[in-house]
This record gives sequence, C-alpha cells and structure tokens, in this order.
Amino acid sequence: MVDMSLVVEPAEMKFLVETLGAIGEQAGGGIIRHVYDQAWIAARRQVADWLRDAGLQVREDAVGNLFGRLEGERRRTILTGSHIDTVRLGGRYDGALGVLSALAAVRLLKQRLGTPLRSLEVVALCEEEDSRFHCNFWGTRGILGLIDEGELDTLRDEHGTSIGKAMAEVGLPPERFREARRDDLDAFVELHIEQGRILFDEGLPLGIVDTITGLYRFKVTVEGRTDHAGTTPMDLRRDALQAAAHMAQEMTRIVEGAGRPAVITNGWWEVLPGAWNIVPGLVHFAVDLRHPDEAVKQRLAAEVRARGEQVAAERGVSVTYKVVGDVPPKDMDAGVKAHLQAAAETCGVHWMPMVSGAGHDSQVMATRVPTAMLFVPSVEGRSHSAAEYTTPEDAARGATVLAATLRRLAY
Amino acid sequence: MVDMSLVVEPAEMKFLVETLGAIGEQAGGGIIRHVYDQAWIAARRQVADWLRDAGLQVREDAVGNLFGRLEGERRRTILTGSHIDTVRLGGRYDGALGVLSALAAVRLLKQRLGTPLRSLEVVALCEEEDSRFHCNFWGTRGILGLIDEGELDTLRDEHGTSIGKAMAEVGLPPERFREARRDDLDAFVELHIEQGRILFDEGLPLGIVDTITGLYRFKVTVEGRTDHAGTTPMDLRRDALQAAAHMAQEMTRIVEGAGRPAVITNGWWEVLPGAWNIVPGLVHFAVDLRHPDEAVKQRLAAEVRARGEQVAAERGVSVTYKVVGDVPPKDMDAGVKAHLQAAAETCGVHWMPMVSGAGHDSQVMATRVPTAMLFVPSVEGRSHSAAEYTTPEDAARGATVLAATLRRLAY
Repeated sequence: MVDMSLVVEPAEMKFLVETLGAIGEQAGGGIIRHVYDQAWIAARRQVADWLRDAGLQVREDAVGNLFGRLEGERRRTILTGSHIDTVRLGGRYDGALGVLSALAAVRLLKQRLGTPLRSLEVVALCEEEDSRFHCNFWGTRGILGLIDEGELDTLRDEHGTSIGKAMAEVGLPPERFREARRDDLDAFVELHIEQGRILFDEGLPLGIVDTITGLYRFKVTVEGRTDHAGTTPMDLRRDALQAAAHMAQEMTRIVEGAGRPAVITNGWWEVLPGAWNIVPGLVHFAVDLRHPDEAVKQRLAAEVRARGEQVAAERGVSVTYKVVGDVPPKDMDAGVKAHLQAAAETCGVHWMPMVSGAGHDSQVMATRVPTAMLFVPSVEGRSHSAAEYTTPEDAARGATVLAATLRRLAY
Repeated sequence: MVDMSLVVEPAEMKFLVETLGAIGEQAGGGIIRHVYDQAWIAARRQVADWLRDAGLQVREDAVGNLFGRLEGERRRTILTGSHIDTVRLGGRYDGALGVLSALAAVRLLKQRLGTPLRSLEVVALCEEEDSRFHCNFWGTRGILGLIDEGELDTLRDEHGTSIGKAMAEVGLPPERFREARRDDLDAFVELHIEQGRILFDEGLPLGIVDTITGLYRFKVTVEGRTDHAGTTPMDLRRDALQAAAHMAQEMTRIVEGAGRPAVITNGWWEVLPGAWNIVPGLVHFAVDLRHPDEAVKQRLAAEVRARGEQVAAERGVSVTYKVVGDVPPKDMDAGVKAHLQAAAETCGVHWMPMVSGAGHDSQVMATRVPTAMLFVPSVEGRSHSAAEYTTPEDAARGATVLAATLRRLAY
C-alpha cells in the first residue's frame, strides 16, 4: 500500500544531485569539498537556499553543521541527513545523497502532512571524511559534545592551519564550539550509498544496516639507512622502502587469509628522501584495517603489527606504529531499524540486512541517540571517486522509504 | 720518493670542506645546493674567491660552470675538478671534494712549479646530480656541446620552472648555451669520494677507476582502480599499490640473484590518490638499475620489465614503463689512468682498481676527452646524506696524488 502522495520523484533527485555535485567539481572530474573551504561554503549556501525554499527554519551551529527545521508540536527532534564534505576527488553521492534525500523527504512531508507531532530536522553535517584534518565526524561530535578543546589547535591540515583557525576564517568563533551540543534528539536516520557492490550484485534496491564495521588505523614508520643507489651493494643495504613493501604485502596476506568481510588498505605512502638515486632511509605508510567483529578486529590488528615487526627484524630496519584510530563496531538501534523495515515494506521496496564496511556519522551518533541507516545501491560498487553513481530511480526509492520512516517517527 | 714540496695538508682540506659545506646546509643537517639556486650561487662565489686568491684567472661559462685557469706555455688544457651541486640533503664531499682537491692541487703546483707547459684549469661543474631538473651532467654536456636546445624549455623543476628560465634568473642568457663548448681539452681528471664502502672495508686510501657502471632508469606506472577502503572486499580489488609493492619486491629479487655488482633501487614513489580510506588506483615509482657490463645490464633490464608485466597480469592491473636513462658503462682512458697509477706510486699511496657504481661527469667527459678518476674512501660507505665523511688525511692524500698526476700531465 504505497501512499502515492509521499513518493519522491527520480527527476527531483537527479536535479538535486547534479546541482550540488557541480560544486567543487574539478576540471578532470572528481569533487574537492573539504570542511571550511570555498567549495564547502558554496555547497552549504545552495543547501540552505533549498531548505529555506522548502519553508524550513535554517540555521548553522557553532561548528558549521547546517540545519533546516520543521517545528512540530513537541520540541523533541527527529534528525535526518548526512555529511556535505567529500574525500579528495570524491563523487557526487557520498554524504550528499543523504542530505538531499532528507531535504526531499522532509519537504514532501511538510507539503502533504503539515506540522508533525515531533519536530523534524534536516542536517548537512560539516565534516565526516577526515580529508583535510584528521578529525572524522567533527560535525557529529560537535552535536554530541565529543570535541575536545585541545583539538582546535592540534588538528592541522597539510599547510599547518589548525581547525580552529580554519573555523575562524569562515566566521565560526572556535571557542564557541560547545554551543553546537544538543540534547533534544530522539532519533537520527541517515541514508547513504552502499559504497560497495553487494546490493548492485544482488539486484536489490535497499539495505538496512545492522552494524557499522570496526576500524583500526595506524601509521607505520620504517627507518632504514639512506645510501647511494649505485655504490651500495644489495647485501649491505637497509632499504626502508623494500622493508615497507614487504610489510604491506605480508599484512595484506594475513587479512586476505581471514576472508570477507575483513579488509586492509595501505592508501597513503611517503618515501624519503624520495630521489631516484638514493636508497630510501625512511618510509611512512598508512594501515586501515576493518572488521565488524571487535574480537576479530583486535586479533587481526595484533597479527599484522607482529608480522610487521618480524619483517623489520629480518631486514635490519626499525619499525614504529602510531595508532590514529580504534573505533569499535556499532550496532544500529533496534527500534529505529524496525521503523525502517516497516517503512520499506509499506513502500513495497525489497531490502536486505547489511553490515556497513565504511564508517559513518551514524556510528558516532548511535553512541548517544537511537540511530539507524539505510543504504541505496552504488553502481559497480564504485565509491570515493568521480565514478560514484546511483540511479535516480534508486535514489528516489531510498528517499521515499526515508519519508515513510520519518512519517512513522514524527507524525 | 715523495716530493715533500707537493704535499697537500689535511688541515687545508678540512678547512676547505667545512667552509664550502656550510653553504646550503639545512637546520636539521644535510645540504640543499641545487643548480641555479641561492646556495649554489653562494658556493660558487666562495670557490671563485679561493681561485682568485690562488692567482688563477677566474671565469664562468655560458651554462654556469666556473673555471680557474693557470695559463701554460701552450693553449691546450688539462682540466680537473668535479661538480658543485648536491642532491637534496646531501653531504659535504660528493662533488665538492673534487673541486676543492683540484683547487688545492693547482694552487700548490703554481706556488712550487710556476708556469706549466700545458695550461691547467680547475672546474666547478654546475650540475651533475639531477636533483632539480632531470638533466644529469648539464655542465659537462655544455662543455662538450651535448645540450639539445629543446632541453632549455622541456627540462622543468617541480615548480614548473624551465632550466632556461632558471639560467636567465641567475644572469645566464640561455640562448648562449652553445658558447660553453670548448675543444682545447687534452685530459680531464676527477677526484671523487667512493660513495661505497669497498676502500673503507679494505683499509685502502685510494681507488683508480677502470670503468664507470652502466645505468638503466625507468618510471613504472601501475594503474588499478580506486575503491572505498571499507566496502570493497579484498578479492574484488585492483589495488595499484599492492601490485607495485609486489613488483618492487620481485625486481629486487631478480637483481639480488645476479649478485654483486648488480644493484637496483626504487627511490621515488607516488601513490594516488593518497588517502587513508581509498584503495590506491595509480602508483608511479622509479627503477634505477646499474651494472658495469652492458650485456648483463640489458639482460637484467629485460628480466625486471618482464616480471613487472607478469605481476600486473596476475593482479589485473596495467603497467607501463617510461625509460628515462640508458647510459652504457664507460671505460676510463688508459693513458691518463697510467699517469694516476704512476703518481700514486711516486707518492707512496697504496691503491686498488675499481668499478664506479655511481655515475660521474667523467663518464660523459670520457666520450670526447681522455679522462680518468681517482676515489678516496667514504667512512662506512655513507653517501648522498649528511653522514658523508672522508677523513682530512684521506682527502689530503687524494689531493696530493692529484697534484702529482697534474704535474705529470702539465709540466
């Protein structure tokens, strides 16, 4: 029994995605929209215009989250949305689709059903991707009071600018960060692209998330010895790069051996001094390890660390690790999830339960607020690249289920 | 029978090395003195002062080589020296010691023996290290007429500045580059640190070079697919970094299998897009392969290229190679070498024949001018780093043998 008056149209989603996706898009394709940069400001301005046109009360908070509120009979709030920043050269859907679906859904609910019982609010969270500062979930943490004052200075971008200074530059006095905190949230619902290819391969239009995977991140520093590339025999070298390449291969082998859904990635490398004719003496590289079972995650983390140390010992180099993230997996709220499932069924949309391999604002929000997520398909599973794509039909189906869920939660 | 009037003193070499080595030295140690930069200008000014104080005629040529000439009865010239630029964060001896030994030797010969039969000239070659522009041997190639006009524009530093523009900025009109060419050279003698640990391990003070090793350099580009680090199962990835790490390991294994003196180095890497949470889709890395036997060099080059292609095929990524250098080994001139050997014996300095694993200006000079090289020990073989060190005694012994050689060649 689909309520035809509460159906979001594919053409509407297509327009919203293409308009927002053009902001920060680079000449060669891919979007750069990092927190507090010019493209980010322009994107928020566009979303603010849409929220205002929909008749919502628009405001930004002390850290730069943008809200559009439909006041209900009660002050308590159902929040929906996602983040507006992108990875470097990211796509049009990651984060953005959650904001735009929330906009489309709440706009439709206001038009068709008027004032809700509980207040409804759309949010464009200011930062999730960790792309400019190493500060995942800045917006969500601001709302939950989980930002530490020291971070304002210690979080720095690659130019050495602190996040506090970057805030000040866009008109957000950093010392007021605590004012972003709120305690009126009854639920958070986030729509997101899957960013993998399970729904795409299964030919299903919707996933409802049971658990968001756990993450373990550390920076590896391998120190060998710089030497001349021509005059140092192979057997006398302490080549930091060869050792690091060996470690990366071995760590990958261990995690591959554990099978799905365990994943490990070495996405960032710095090889020093970085000259053709010098044996590298120092290498830094990233390890990003994920598993939805905390015990398995910790076991794999211990194994890859130990194997890295063995390789270092075998090769006469030193290795050190700096853990930069250890986030446990997070189950979604059973109650909100039940509303999502009921809404999907009301809308006649087939769905499957899923594990999220990616981190999301929802995992942090879920520590304080009943939270659930829905996934829409990513064509070929492409993500964090300009090739990201979700069909307008799938996007609209997701937004329609979101509207039905918000109706159940707020009216 | 050492001629005590022609002995260079350790204290003199120590003073010269320390004074020149302070120019371009960085706060954390290591020198940055790249062709046409400020430190390079300051270093040349210092050397020019010393040459002038020694009573030599000082001039610079059209590409920036600096000369100090002791006019002989004949116009034909014996040239001696080395280069004055450094690698990034290089040491005080590479190149510099050859310039300073030449200065000390020619100054002494002028003081003690006066006007030579053939003219004697000290040179500080402007560029050898390939550190700012990819243009090895720029100074020597200028002298030999081996610079191609197109290079003035196509050779660019990391900021996109062409070498022609860099020349103009230091007052060298680039269009006059051909004026650097000269045809009056009867011999070139270059003293250099070994940059390896063979002399150091053998406890010998001097090496006389038979052959300069051959070099084969190419840039590897591995193209896979960017994907989300959390949501893409290991078995569905086409990870360019894992493939590149595998290739580097395999190429190294092949060259290690060939035994000394074969060497291979992967000193420069670029991993893109370079984010912690993105599976790398594109990796560029450097291969620097060296062997003093051209046939072995070419065989190893073919093997490592083929193995790289196999790894790419196994892993479902593409690989392309761009050859940026293929320099054959170069034998030193038997006549000049005989003078070096006789001079070493006259001075009572024990020596051994050597292969140079590093490239040197001498290998290019030798294509047109009778050329030979002598090596002095590098403590622990350290090179291309701030840890480079040659004792003042070894440096002085080398300069003394150089003076005796020049005496044989010019007087």
